[in-house]
Amino acid sequence: MFRLAHINGRAALLDATHWFDLAGVTGDQSLADPMVAIARHAELHIAHDALASATPGGAIAEARLGACVPRPEKVFAIGLNYRSHAEESGMAIPPAPMTFTKFPTCLVGPTDDIVLSGAFVDWEVELVAVIGTGGRHISRDAAWSHVAGLTLGQDISDRVVQMTGAPAQFSMGKSFDTFGPIGPAVVSLDAFPDPDNVGLWCDVAGERMQDARTDDLIFSVPEIIEYLSAICTLTAGDIIFTGTPSGVGGSRGRFLAEGETIDSGAEIIGSLHNRCVAP
Amino acid sequence: MFRLAHINGRAALLDATHWFDLAGVTGDQSLADPMVAIARHAELHIAHDALASATPGGAIAEARLGACVPRPEKVFAIGLNYRSHAEESGMAIPPAPMTFTKFPTCLVGPTDDIVLSGAFVDWEVELVAVIGTGGRHISRDAAWSHVAGLTLGQDISDRVVQMTGAPAQFSMGKSFDTFGPIGPAVVSLDAFPDPDNVGLWCDVAGERMQDARTDDLIFSVPEIIEYLSAICTLTAGDIIFTGTPSGVGGSRGRFLAEGETIDSGAEIIGSLHNRCVAP
Repeated sequence: MFRLAHINGRAALLDATHWFDLAGVTGDQSLADPMVAIARHAELHIAHDALASATPGGAIAEARLGACVPRPEKVFAIGLNYRSHAEESGMAIPPAPMTFTKFPTCLVGPTDDIVLSGAFVDWEVELVAVIGTGGRHISRDAAWSHVAGLTLGQDISDRVVQMTGAPAQFSMGKSFDTFGPIGPAVVSLDAFPDPDNVGLWCDVAGERMQDARTDDLIFSVPEIIEYLSAICTLTAGDIIFTGTPSGVGGSRGRFLAEGETIDSGAEIIGSLHNRCVAP
Repeated sequence: MFRLAHINGRAALLDATHWFDLAGVTGDQSLADPMVAIARHAELHIAHDALASATPGGAIAEARLGACVPRPEKVFAIGLNYRSHAEESGMAIPPAPMTFTKFPTCLVGPTDDIVLSGAFVDWEVELVAVIGTGGRHISRDAAWSHVAGLTLGQDISDRVVQMTGAPAQFSMGKSFDTFGPIGPAVVSLDAFPDPDNVGLWCDVAGERMQDARTDDLIFSVPEIIEYLSAICTLTAGDIIFTGTPSGVGGSRGRFLAEGETIDSGAEIIGSLHNRCVAP
């Protein structure tokens, strides 16, 4: 088991209350880079076991965490991947995982501010899978063995930009700087009773907006990996936003306002706390 | 003036006939990385002037060139950006640059093979702009000063995957491994009489299929940069496929077949020569 975070620009392991500099714990400076740490995820279980006798860097509550995957080569994002959300959006169930990108410059840490781009910015809580071992033509049966762990993300979306033109501008509407909070950590799969069935939720200004389980995904994480890797080689550190359940603002006629906070959570993984600010 | 290529995994400058190892010419090993060289593009003009007295690494004709921008953080690709191509595709002129991604794993060198994914794979010759100096909120008037240079690309597209589902799967249909030949080099802007008016063409199996000039772009390179940077921070090494003119296979009912070659060319920049092979 491990929980891999990103603190002060360096990879860190978390226990229940404290963080530990990964390069310090292992004595291997190359593991200071979170992207290297993800590619060497098998070694992190051993490092985690050493935390009991290691000196912590500080309390998690007092640290500012960065995006736990700061520089992925590829960010895949899947649209309309819960039946309930496809229905509320008035769109057909896709025949294949509907895939766009969130350009990597949008990624921020779990407590960073979200800079609103306009009056129609929406929330979308999502489970995020982190590729640990790359490959091409990965079968769904082998797919979980290519995953370093799971984290939580918000696929913040400017609905005006997203829906401008035909075909729609999904990638740009979801790629404004700060529109991709992820974290708090990449949590290894052995921490989950069932990685195909993780509860996640989203509160906006204290009101529960989304509440679902990933066993309702139309395309499961292994099925998405099989689809993507049939097309392009996956690389360690690639991340997959797996889609959002029902309850987004667009279906409620209610969008994010300056000063509001978004509190997102997932079983085992932890939580994001992001404040909406004006540009 | 400079022409920056990628040979044997290292940055190289080209003169008319030979290539020169950039780190060797400059005595600066950090310039061996093509991505570092792009970010330090202002220095490459001076390095180019030193080629006359430098020892070449070899003849260009005998070298195998890699993708001149091997690891961009972001690959933007613009759809339907020539009036003639929007018309032949039967699609409306977009209200804003229609933007998708080609995931970076698809990039290959100027003479590499294209591995066909099926019976409906198509060609799309495109001018590619390479960001040299990043930034946010770049105005169209300042945009060219953020460009390191121009290169040529093929936005190879599997039309079946691209058009599956709604909204359409542009990013996946265009991201199969090998579907992004670029090169032969990043050519600095001062090499062009007018960087807004570059002739480009594409021959398939010896037949001229596309022949156009970039002064027919609906959204010019500066306008695209203004649009993209209003949304996300551009980073040195980001590349922009600017769209393809009319003459693609989809409008002819004729697609790429095993053994065929695609010869793409652009004024000043040079040419790509890619053979189509079976998986």
